[in-house]
Amino acid sequence: MSQYFEELRPFMDRAMAMMAAKTLFEWDEETLAPEEAGKYTSKTVGVLSEEYQKAVTDARAKELLMLCEKDDTLTDAERAIVREWREELSRLDAIPPQEYRAYAEVLAKASRIWAKAKKENDFASFAPVLKEIIGWQKKFASYEAKEGQKLYDVMLNQYEKGFNMEQLDVFFDLVKREWIPLLKDVLKKQKEEGITDDFLYGDFDEKKQEEIGRFLAEYVGFDFRKGVFATSAHPFTTNLHNHDVRITTHYTDKLDSSLFSVIHETGHAIYEMGIADELTQTPAGQGASMAMHESQSRFFENILGRNVAFWKPVYGKLQETFPDVLGEVSVEQFVKAVCLVKPGLIRTEADELTYCLHVLVRYELEKMLIEDDLDVMELPKLWKEKYKEYLGVEPETDSEGVLQDIHWAGGSFGYFPSYALGSAFGAQMYEAMKKTMDVDTLLEEGKIGEIRDYLRKEIHRYGKMKTSQEILKQMTGEEFNPKYYLQYLKEKYLG
Amino acid sequence: MSQYFEELRPFMDRAMAMMAAKTLFEWDEETLAPEEAGKYTSKTVGVLSEEYQKAVTDARAKELLMLCEKDDTLTDAERAIVREWREELSRLDAIPPQEYRAYAEVLAKASRIWAKAKKENDFASFAPVLKEIIGWQKKFASYEAKEGQKLYDVMLNQYEKGFNMEQLDVFFDLVKREWIPLLKDVLKKQKEEGITDDFLYGDFDEKKQEEIGRFLAEYVGFDFRKGVFATSAHPFTTNLHNHDVRITTHYTDKLDSSLFSVIHETGHAIYEMGIADELTQTPAGQGASMAMHESQSRFFENILGRNVAFWKPVYGKLQETFPDVLGEVSVEQFVKAVCLVKPGLIRTEADELTYCLHVLVRYELEKMLIEDDLDVMELPKLWKEKYKEYLGVEPETDSEGVLQDIHWAGGSFGYFPSYALGSAFGAQMYEAMKKTMDVDTLLEEGKIGEIRDYLRKEIHRYGKMKTSQEILKQMTGEEFNPKYYLQYLKEKYLG
Repeated sequence: MSQYFEELRPFMDRAMAMMAAKTLFEWDEETLAPEEAGKYTSKTVGVLSEEYQKAVTDARAKELLMLCEKDDTLTDAERAIVREWREELSRLDAIPPQEYRAYAEVLAKASRIWAKAKKENDFASFAPVLKEIIGWQKKFASYEAKEGQKLYDVMLNQYEKGFNMEQLDVFFDLVKREWIPLLKDVLKKQKEEGITDDFLYGDFDEKKQEEIGRFLAEYVGFDFRKGVFATSAHPFTTNLHNHDVRITTHYTDKLDSSLFSVIHETGHAIYEMGIADELTQTPAGQGASMAMHESQSRFFENILGRNVAFWKPVYGKLQETFPDVLGEVSVEQFVKAVCLVKPGLIRTEADELTYCLHVLVRYELEKMLIEDDLDVMELPKLWKEKYKEYLGVEPETDSEGVLQDIHWAGGSFGYFPSYALGSAFGAQMYEAMKKTMDVDTLLEEGKIGEIRDYLRKEIHRYGKMKTSQEILKQMTGEEFNPKYYLQYLKEKYLG
Repeated sequence: MSQYFEELRPFMDRAMAMMAAKTLFEWDEETLAPEEAGKYTSKTVGVLSEEYQKAVTDARAKELLMLCEKDDTLTDAERAIVREWREELSRLDAIPPQEYRAYAEVLAKASRIWAKAKKENDFASFAPVLKEIIGWQKKFASYEAKEGQKLYDVMLNQYEKGFNMEQLDVFFDLVKREWIPLLKDVLKKQKEEGITDDFLYGDFDEKKQEEIGRFLAEYVGFDFRKGVFATSAHPFTTNLHNHDVRITTHYTDKLDSSLFSVIHETGHAIYEMGIADELTQTPAGQGASMAMHESQSRFFENILGRNVAFWKPVYGKLQETFPDVLGEVSVEQFVKAVCLVKPGLIRTEADELTYCLHVLVRYELEKMLIEDDLDVMELPKLWKEKYKEYLGVEPETDSEGVLQDIHWAGGSFGYFPSYALGSAFGAQMYEAMKKTMDVDTLLEEGKIGEIRDYLRKEIHRYGKMKTSQEILKQMTGEEFNPKYYLQYLKEKYLG
């Protein structure tokens, strides 16, 4: 046992407690808090953020961290914790506190300005603060950048360690080259087959949607003894530790919306619930990366969930819950409907195939904003052009165009690519997995637990002990390769 | 503006943020958290407690507090905040940190041992830890005691500033002398009148109970823009600040249980929602005292709520919600039923009249435990004897006797009397209020808002700026006088 690590632990406990408290307040804000609480509660959350920063950057903790880094008695888990702590410290130390505070104030107003601009379809009112955020983001990235490192690469690396524009250009070039013709072929085939999803639209009882949602979450592997299931405007997953993981869904007039949101968020939740006990409540106690997380949620949602084998054991229950809607619809018809490819304007509502094209637009624009100093006022026009070119649809308003996502208003640049990368990771894993187990048969037999156990063993338990690249390499025997993603989509949608 | 006070503010913000975070975790634990989260989450809550203590006892904050105490430019609110901060500091400073930690560990195990002992009706297994807690409580009280001050007086003063055994003996002597014969007379009268509450028992739809509960809360004055309404095993109220106040209720097989819990908790909530903005999120930003809080909740529940004038405007809504149960029951019959006096074993289920006798038992036993070194093993026998003598009922098991309440397992000695005091405060206020407004007519006309405004003006807005005694004196023109309570009960139940 390392004496230095034991001495470091209370500092870590303090930092993690502040973070957990912040997380609980954020959860509460999204799910329950009364409408007028915000102004007062934000004062509390502000203090928690500051105390978190103080705990991480404490002078004695820094000394201990250095001693731990030289200590060869550390376990693997402890070494990972020390490494993640160092990264967090570097990130926090790089930015002068007064700049960080000024930036936090910009972000606080930005989310309100963005919400109003989106509501009123007024991009021009959002542009100045967006420009300000980009300025700060570039400044902060420049503090962190190693000699010769591009600023957008610094940003990408924050969300996906080891990934930069070099790899992502390869990936997105493939997407641009292959997805657009693939989309055309799929749309043609769908038309020939006359597939419809009309029956999925309607006015569905929320209680029943919740009932089937809870059933599905549990079926997929959500452990209610360690988790909470709730409602919010936009579905999300959060966690306080591996024994308290929380998912939300929303209820809409499209029956599959909540169903697949639940499966998606359960994928995230299974990841967090599967992280080893020795890692939870430490800086290494979260998923390996954004894309690795998304690989799990999208794996459950799309690769498993949009598969007739998945539904065979549970479709009866769904039919029983909505007999008027699904009584006459076969499981095959249902799955064809939920796999229907429909180019649209909104990323979060996109089907499995066009999803990547939504991300492609954002990746290209982010590169231009960060690397080519694109004027933010050019965004709406470029957005429309790219949507037209890649997806064949063009937003009439900026609200359903460049203003649709909150990410940029929150200072998240370099985040969007993770969504697409995650899908590609999932397809590569699926290919490897099929060599060791008969996924479809397991699904048909209701043995989804075996798939979950495999993912837990290969991915979840490690938390941040391994990078996404290391996990992928160990699990699939090769480096990240987007060809599997293309192959998967072609087989599924044209095969 | 006081420079020292402004310098003190960040320390206060830090302390209050830690307290608010702790409160949110406690709320979450009671209403939502998954069953296996506790062990991990308690680590976070432990850190928040420590950080709270550190913020209050910070050396620089102490200097500033002294400077503030000498500063005559402080506003009244600031002076109250400084005074409350000083009291908290004295309390925390009096106890050596290592003793406080040891005590916290005893409490942590005590609540588990108590829960098990209650479940298994095994007082002997709880006795040793109870003895330990009493030992600590006496030790801590001795640190705080002024020369010649009795230990139980120190404890009473923690919950109700300015009250000690001298006043409480006067009060409880009156209770003992007057309530027991009163109870006999009331039971006789009830029997003669043949009042029944049989129709209140049954299997009631929870959704409907919630619907009418929310309606009642809003009717009484719960502001849903600043509040949350939820469910928990035992009803309670908590708050993060005056714009986020939360109440819970429970749903049972007795229709009025949830209704009056809601009115009771709404009384607490109205108090917290009414505290002035300049006080919220400071050490003076809570209700004046435990008894003052209870005076408000019990005022709404009993003095207003168990009154036919209250129900006249809303009984129709209740009948509509439960037509099978109440369709044939008149509002007079309903109110007689919810006012039925029934001596029982359980304090939290007690009617308005016998409630005080339940508290009397606890007050007498606490005095014996703290002042006369009563052996804890004597408690079950004494408990039974006193219940028999005062209420005419005798528990068959300790689970429904001495083990029924969690308070002692939580180290709360001197707390119980507040419940009875609060009822007596309420009756004294009611008497004064009736001189300035026609309460029954206001209730009948649905103008409960005018009563609420009055209470807000006289009590709520002050937070801890005034003690309960000061508020009572200012509002009623005299010192605390329990005769009004007796008079109120006699008029209501025999008049």
